[in-house]
Amino acid sequence: MQATIIAIGDELLIGKVVNTNAAYIARKLNLIGISVKEAIVIGDNKQHILSSLENAHRKSDVIILTGGLGPTSDDITKPALCEYFGSKLEFRPDVLEQVKAFLDKRGGVLNDLNKSQAWVPDNCTLLNNPIGTAPGMFFEKEGRYYFALPGVPFEMEKMFDDHVIPILSKKAGIENIYHRTILTTGISESKLAETISEWEKSLPSFVKLAYLPSPGIVKVRLSVYHNPHGKEIIEDAERRLHAIIAPYIFGYDDDTLEGIVGHLLMSQNATLATAESCTGGNLSLSIVSVPGASAYYKGGIIAYSNEIKINELNVNPDIINHYGAVSQQTAEAMAKGCLNKFETHYSVAVTGIAGPDGGSPEKPVGTVWIAVASPKNIVSEKFLFGDNRIRNIQRSTIAALNMLRKTIEIK
Amino acid sequence: MQATIIAIGDELLIGKVVNTNAAYIARKLNLIGISVKEAIVIGDNKQHILSSLENAHRKSDVIILTGGLGPTSDDITKPALCEYFGSKLEFRPDVLEQVKAFLDKRGGVLNDLNKSQAWVPDNCTLLNNPIGTAPGMFFEKEGRYYFALPGVPFEMEKMFDDHVIPILSKKAGIENIYHRTILTTGISESKLAETISEWEKSLPSFVKLAYLPSPGIVKVRLSVYHNPHGKEIIEDAERRLHAIIAPYIFGYDDDTLEGIVGHLLMSQNATLATAESCTGGNLSLSIVSVPGASAYYKGGIIAYSNEIKINELNVNPDIINHYGAVSQQTAEAMAKGCLNKFETHYSVAVTGIAGPDGGSPEKPVGTVWIAVASPKNIVSEKFLFGDNRIRNIQRSTIAALNMLRKTIEIK
Repeated sequence: MQATIIAIGDELLIGKVVNTNAAYIARKLNLIGISVKEAIVIGDNKQHILSSLENAHRKSDVIILTGGLGPTSDDITKPALCEYFGSKLEFRPDVLEQVKAFLDKRGGVLNDLNKSQAWVPDNCTLLNNPIGTAPGMFFEKEGRYYFALPGVPFEMEKMFDDHVIPILSKKAGIENIYHRTILTTGISESKLAETISEWEKSLPSFVKLAYLPSPGIVKVRLSVYHNPHGKEIIEDAERRLHAIIAPYIFGYDDDTLEGIVGHLLMSQNATLATAESCTGGNLSLSIVSVPGASAYYKGGIIAYSNEIKINELNVNPDIINHYGAVSQQTAEAMAKGCLNKFETHYSVAVTGIAGPDGGSPEKPVGTVWIAVASPKNIVSEKFLFGDNRIRNIQRSTIAALNMLRKTIEIK
Repeated sequence: MQATIIAIGDELLIGKVVNTNAAYIARKLNLIGISVKEAIVIGDNKQHILSSLENAHRKSDVIILTGGLGPTSDDITKPALCEYFGSKLEFRPDVLEQVKAFLDKRGGVLNDLNKSQAWVPDNCTLLNNPIGTAPGMFFEKEGRYYFALPGVPFEMEKMFDDHVIPILSKKAGIENIYHRTILTTGISESKLAETISEWEKSLPSFVKLAYLPSPGIVKVRLSVYHNPHGKEIIEDAERRLHAIIAPYIFGYDDDTLEGIVGHLLMSQNATLATAESCTGGNLSLSIVSVPGASAYYKGGIIAYSNEIKINELNVNPDIINHYGAVSQQTAEAMAKGCLNKFETHYSVAVTGIAGPDGGSPEKPVGTVWIAVASPKNIVSEKFLFGDNRIRNIQRSTIAALNMLRKTIEIK
């Protein structure tokens, strides 16, 4: 099965909003074996919507429309759908009740704009929207499946997962589709690809492989579609992959480094504190992004100035003067000072040169020292990232979490 | 002039990468008076590239292609361009020299993949790529302007600004195009639209208005195209807008709250420290995202646990027991403790319930107290944001920066 995604909205064509919906939809469709042939963005224009629908009809089995359905949308998408599917708008009291209930909960007021949501094409299956006022719609026409969803990403994503995926799974048949994602850190995409090239060549041709990189992390996704032995085949491939790159693997599927660190700490009833210089809060932010982090994360120090490294983390000024603020000695002293101050089981310290300024020939921009301390020992490591400030902060955060993970796992 | 954007790449159609390029291009084209009619994403498929080019040719004056040019790209886009524009690939020693120089600087190695970048269509104008190995290309055909650019966003963005905008500005004529963006915080998009609806109605029809919202901030952009009086007309509109919503305006055009706070602190030779609970480091991260922040930002405490609020920020435990960790009293005590500890001119403290857990009927998820202290006085304010953890953190950060800005401005 092949799909076309049509996003509708002038706000997308002036660049006010990035169309994240298309990537979300594509990723989810791929997981059930439906490939996306084309994704287009068009404005709020009836003729353009109609011609895009006709075009998509010729090329694909599944057509997903997003946007143009909200209460403040211009009255263009629904009439276009009625014309295309030969429907009439009918008033649905049940939808009005849902809109009312939704607004009541939020202290919103029912006005003419909201009321208009209850007028829907008479020949579609309505898809319930529990977190907004615009219902989604499902049409079938000449063997094609059409879905119209609101454009707000969190509404669209929920409705896509709750309605579209189950319907398409039934229509497309998702028996025997298997995926496994192996999460790595500490190795670049190109180096990883080179390291596992023999393994990659050994895979049966029906095993699909995708590299999904983000700063500091490369995910390797294995997929097998419509094969009754898919599970065993992927398990075997994963076993052999593990033998090659085990030191780089930190998790699987939906794992995150901060989530894994959290689980490890909870399982040990252990606590954590942070001392950050160049990451400036990104490490702690990442740790508290896990709901319930307060069970193990006590807090930290943003030691942006040397003064704070000295006064708050008890770093000996001689160490900074002699070795520099970005050095193994300073990172270890920060981690130790942090552990003592917060009386936690673990601490992690990051000090580096994020850029664009502050680099030198011996310590160029991107030089970062990270130390992890526990009452028993301390480990530290030097990293040399690139010259992009934001990515240096992101990669330092990932590296710090990974060092934490390894230290806590060993315990 | 109307434009079509064509993004090429299988990685976009499996949702591996979000197509941020389209929004960037659309925003920049709009600023020079070129509107985008359609943005499409297609795979690495020669026939599909050719049919999309033909389709775009019928509908638009400007066609921007992104992706499919890098050294690891499948050899599809360049041959498709040659077929479409009737070109032959020619070897350009000058491009090879640039590729070599680029790789040398990075410690990269010239291999066959990189060398292939020096083979380019013989009837295009090459667009220099100073931060990558793939040059861009500019073609003219039957009165249409075609640009092919690499897909990596930071390369694409630089080349778009350096080459595409100047060329199109000359072709489209950007004399007398004027823009002004007014930045507001503390008011929602719908409330703002309601508040300034009379002003909006009073605008001449050729003054284009766009609302650009992000968590905690709404930008209002005024544009006038091809009008010799545009400057005065926008200035007059801005003056009248200012009279209505002055308390919400924090800056103009490319200003950021963290940048403004930084400038204010520098102009006063003043220093800043932070004490964060629910924002967990996002506030400090935002402050250090301004290069050179170390001149005024000393650092901060992530006081995630009450223990740290008490031990590090000297908050009286009775205050927490009596009023709660999320209260005016605790926020003010945190700010005072932070100011004393770090000996700065200003401090800011944030304590709140980001969610999803921790809410109660009196203090629901989204309740946040923020306090700003200086040796002379302390101000605090309560906010009630929504139920989304990430957005609560973002909006708390914006609110804290804005309170800081107002306090420092008054000084």
